[in-house]
Amino acid sequence: MPRYRLTLEYDGTGLVGWQRQENGPSVQQHLEAAITGFCGETVTVFAAGRTDAGVHALGQVAHIDLDRDAEPDTVRDALNHHLKPARIAVLAAERVDDDFHARFSARERQYLYRIVNRRAPLTVDEGYAWWVPPALDAVAMHAAAQVLVGKHDFSSFRAAECQAKSPVKTLDALAVARDGDWVLVTARARSFLHHQVRNIVGTLRRVGEGKWSADDVRAALEARDRAKAGATAPACGLYLTRVVY
Amino acid sequence: MPRYRLTLEYDGTGLVGWQRQENGPSVQQHLEAAITGFCGETVTVFAAGRTDAGVHALGQVAHIDLDRDAEPDTVRDALNHHLKPARIAVLAAERVDDDFHARFSARERQYLYRIVNRRAPLTVDEGYAWWVPPALDAVAMHAAAQVLVGKHDFSSFRAAECQAKSPVKTLDALAVARDGDWVLVTARARSFLHHQVRNIVGTLRRVGEGKWSADDVRAALEARDRAKAGATAPACGLYLTRVVY
Repeated sequence: MPRYRLTLEYDGTGLVGWQRQENGPSVQQHLEAAITGFCGETVTVFAAGRTDAGVHALGQVAHIDLDRDAEPDTVRDALNHHLKPARIAVLAAERVDDDFHARFSARERQYLYRIVNRRAPLTVDEGYAWWVPPALDAVAMHAAAQVLVGKHDFSSFRAAECQAKSPVKTLDALAVARDGDWVLVTARARSFLHHQVRNIVGTLRRVGEGKWSADDVRAALEARDRAKAGATAPACGLYLTRVVY
Repeated sequence: MPRYRLTLEYDGTGLVGWQRQENGPSVQQHLEAAITGFCGETVTVFAAGRTDAGVHALGQVAHIDLDRDAEPDTVRDALNHHLKPARIAVLAAERVDDDFHARFSARERQYLYRIVNRRAPLTVDEGYAWWVPPALDAVAMHAAAQVLVGKHDFSSFRAAECQAKSPVKTLDALAVARDGDWVLVTARARSFLHHQVRNIVGTLRRVGEGKWSADDVRAALEARDRAKAGATAPACGLYLTRVVY
């Protein structure tokens, strides 16, 4: 039974997120239906990151086991055919060993959060970035972000519904950079808590607006209390960009 | 009567283009309605480029004359308020002299055409780029593009409905560059014929696929016959990026 690793891109708009749910269409459901459409098999797809409702992916990774022994490029093209018109695409399919697991073998997840920082509302980027009108100091945001890098109890940045066993995570990198009107936040870690990146971005916004200092971010982290950190940034600005194995 | 220069961004999806028409909503119509909403005045807006249906703009320029003497930032914010929910935004408003004319004072228009060159269909970029699955040789496309730079009779790249007096235009620059799966075509000229950029891109695609050489592009140009050049690339990949005065 061959195992395939799939690299996925999707537009999270209108989806309930990666995981199959009762209340709407998920990436998992679309993909499992496409597999059935392709080869008649009913399989469960495992993904590296269970992205939330509305979150996009440019480099999600999943794996599937098929009875059918098909060329990887055939699997990619056939799944893309059956995925239409959902805005979910298989960028690449590869044969992998049976010990490869999209979720458990992953050594690092990389996320990008896109902010458009300007007075004018969004047009072509509506639904694909967070519109923040007040001027943000990206340099101050980057400096404050470094407080969060490393191994910490991230309870202050953890959603109430988070299912992780422990709130302790190691954030390998967190960077904020300005590119014209764009403020781009990138984060890397072996794994993240539920809403962790969005809660961090909402907190860094306070710094960018000059309302908070890096010390305030440190105090919020040390409080281990979700109520002490910033608001959750909207899902539409977040992209799962890459998974490293 | 103060004159204002407006820098505009818009999502061309679902719009009939810049110009007011009977068959659907235009950028001009939305903008003129927003002006009436703001100050009660009925004005005509003049733009640098009359973008087609479905074409996007990141830096369109227009001008308006208002009886009301308002701060430029107030004009910008008020128009953005009244433009909602249309995906049209005023990035900047400035006071300009009465001899400034958005269309006639423009010295150069700059366009960007975005191609995604990969087997997998588009997701987050659907409607904002042209999906071209066959592998494109961007280096060959760039080399062939240089045949078109300069002053030429561009009849082979001109839409039948083009209203320009002459098919002779000077193309100041035309560049093709690859960035991962993206193939980006940029074009600069004082002015363009109707569909000129899209017809050029459709022609360069033939070169990218290896079906045409630079000499074939030259022959198509010299034929002065629309039927001798490539197909018109779709509107959704085209962006008016900047107007120089």
